[in-house]
Amino acid sequence: MAVQATVPVRDTADLSLAYTPGVAKVCTAIAEQPELVDDYTWKSQVVAVVTDGSAVLGLGDIGPEASLPVMEGKAILFKQFGGVDAVPIALDTKDADEIVETVVRLAPSFGGVNLEDISAPRCFEIEERLKERLNIPVFHDDQHGTAIVTLAALRNAARLTGRALGDLRAVISGAGAAGVAIAKILVEAGIGDVTVCDRKGIVSATRDDLNDVKRELAGFTNKAGRSGSLEDAMAGADVFIGVSGGTVPEPAVATMAEGAFVFAMANPNPEIHPDVARKYAAVVATGRSDYPNQINNVLAFPGVFAGALQVRATSITEGMKLAAAEALAAVVADELSAEKVIPSPFDERVGPAVTAAVAAAARAEGVARR
Amino acid sequence: MAVQATVPVRDTADLSLAYTPGVAKVCTAIAEQPELVDDYTWKSQVVAVVTDGSAVLGLGDIGPEASLPVMEGKAILFKQFGGVDAVPIALDTKDADEIVETVVRLAPSFGGVNLEDISAPRCFEIEERLKERLNIPVFHDDQHGTAIVTLAALRNAARLTGRALGDLRAVISGAGAAGVAIAKILVEAGIGDVTVCDRKGIVSATRDDLNDVKRELAGFTNKAGRSGSLEDAMAGADVFIGVSGGTVPEPAVATMAEGAFVFAMANPNPEIHPDVARKYAAVVATGRSDYPNQINNVLAFPGVFAGALQVRATSITEGMKLAAAEALAAVVADELSAEKVIPSPFDERVGPAVTAAVAAAARAEGVARR
Repeated sequence: MAVQATVPVRDTADLSLAYTPGVAKVCTAIAEQPELVDDYTWKSQVVAVVTDGSAVLGLGDIGPEASLPVMEGKAILFKQFGGVDAVPIALDTKDADEIVETVVRLAPSFGGVNLEDISAPRCFEIEERLKERLNIPVFHDDQHGTAIVTLAALRNAARLTGRALGDLRAVISGAGAAGVAIAKILVEAGIGDVTVCDRKGIVSATRDDLNDVKRELAGFTNKAGRSGSLEDAMAGADVFIGVSGGTVPEPAVATMAEGAFVFAMANPNPEIHPDVARKYAAVVATGRSDYPNQINNVLAFPGVFAGALQVRATSITEGMKLAAAEALAAVVADELSAEKVIPSPFDERVGPAVTAAVAAAARAEGVARR
Repeated sequence: MAVQATVPVRDTADLSLAYTPGVAKVCTAIAEQPELVDDYTWKSQVVAVVTDGSAVLGLGDIGPEASLPVMEGKAILFKQFGGVDAVPIALDTKDADEIVETVVRLAPSFGGVNLEDISAPRCFEIEERLKERLNIPVFHDDQHGTAIVTLAALRNAARLTGRALGDLRAVISGAGAAGVAIAKILVEAGIGDVTVCDRKGIVSATRDDLNDVKRELAGFTNKAGRSGSLEDAMAGADVFIGVSGGTVPEPAVATMAEGAFVFAMANPNPEIHPDVARKYAAVVATGRSDYPNQINNVLAFPGVFAGALQVRATSITEGMKLAAAEALAAVVADELSAEKVIPSPFDERVGPAVTAAVAAAARAEGVARR
């Protein structure tokens, strides 16, 4: 990637405007009326893509330098799919306090913060604390981007098969960043019941080995009070959502309810091969581009930030996320098939639809500054 | 300014390379061989333009947001005049420890750090500590950019009037960031004697009101052990360099040696009007674009960083700064006149000349990594 000037500096007159003495007038104006920084600089259009390199893709803790290619790729997608400028910021610290303080200090230069590839459970705490401290959007894409796209696909799968969301029982395999956020958004969207499983099985209030995040999770999921293994949870379930990186045996899928949805999103190896899942499920999705129904969060984050920045939102609310999912699902609502419950990343309607929905939701929720 | 993708993302194949799963191979390669980050990301071509907004132009402490227009203007000039990508980083802290820690944490993402508009004397300490902690170039432009261009103009003024640098006695008005750095580079370059004045007059070892930086300054300047006012210092001096923002009365200029050089660089109001100075001086320079001989540090910083980044220098040494000044002066060495001792910022020979000289000096000084 590269930086690009959007104004020409061809002669002394241009130079006197872009730099001293002309720039002093712009500085003075902002010093007198701080909100002008959004009009007079690139702040309101640029997002920091912040990581500590601790949970990069499926590679784990590979450190800040090695994580830069992901951040740079992300920045390019921000631009291409949302028209949003983004700058990779890979931090040389894994201490939650230091990450929070550093991002707070950086905030004057940025219109938003996209957290990326920070390991759980620190990612939850870091996001929460930054949301409290900052009046610009803070969004952990591994959580919320994935959750938005998953909900959109689930909405369309239900629409396609004539099911009500409230009648569905979903099982999520994986209680990391993505699993927790998906559980939250599914509950908010009115899915009948959601059960989350970690490596030790169903996350339930009866377990005594849960960290704070999982204890909270147990509080608003698993209505039926199930306990046991992932296989126990899957028996009779309508929806399987895999964000674990593990595998799911074929017999477990076979025990799911008729017309089930299987979203096996581990990358590059889905929890169960989509060809196998298709023998039992009505709709199958993966995280891969070489199978139908790719749950790719590039469908969400560019439009989410574009919409938030457009209205200079002070935060990204749950309502904005739900609106993003709904708008994303609506793009292909009239073209649904078992192979198409979610648009392609290259569907040019996606960016504008998500942007508009998020901007409108921000206004409706009172977090828009214009 | 804006961010620009330098690779296309047109289809699923491109997307799989720029983002998952393809990007994982790039990350893994860097995790195994860390120096590949310079080849595989934009790190080695991007500079953080870091400020705390405490000494912005002549406006003083206007805070990080209000300083952003200067940082953004600077980023545009970095690109246009040096081909260097630069990102504005205006920090929400003025604590030296916090600034140092923050920049150290940001360093994995950047190939260099350009400090900007940080007030003295903190700027000296911050730069020194960052140079110790980091293995990428750290350069406080208000100090060294100004110093390089001033030395280049002085070299050419001496060349034009047939004077040896060792025979010149220079007086610097202003002991802030620029004044201190100019004093250092003039001494390094072999100027006969350098006297620095602050608001209380000549900085000399006999004064008991000096901070650490000025005490050090007194140690290597003012060979003749002068004391007294700026006017006392100027009497008989060959060179006046104004970086104070104050004014100098005409009679003081009249007392300078015959054929003097007056560089009245305060912006927008030079310490003495160039038309008045010309009555007494052989060469007059200012910081303004509407008079001849503009001492503009855009002549230095883009090429300095371009040269340092080109060879992946681990620091910017004194030798590299001296080489930059010499190369900058050499650009117009065959075209000298009293109205042209320094090139125009739009002279297209400047960027390449400074870049090449700095890269060569980095190699000669053993700080180049390639």
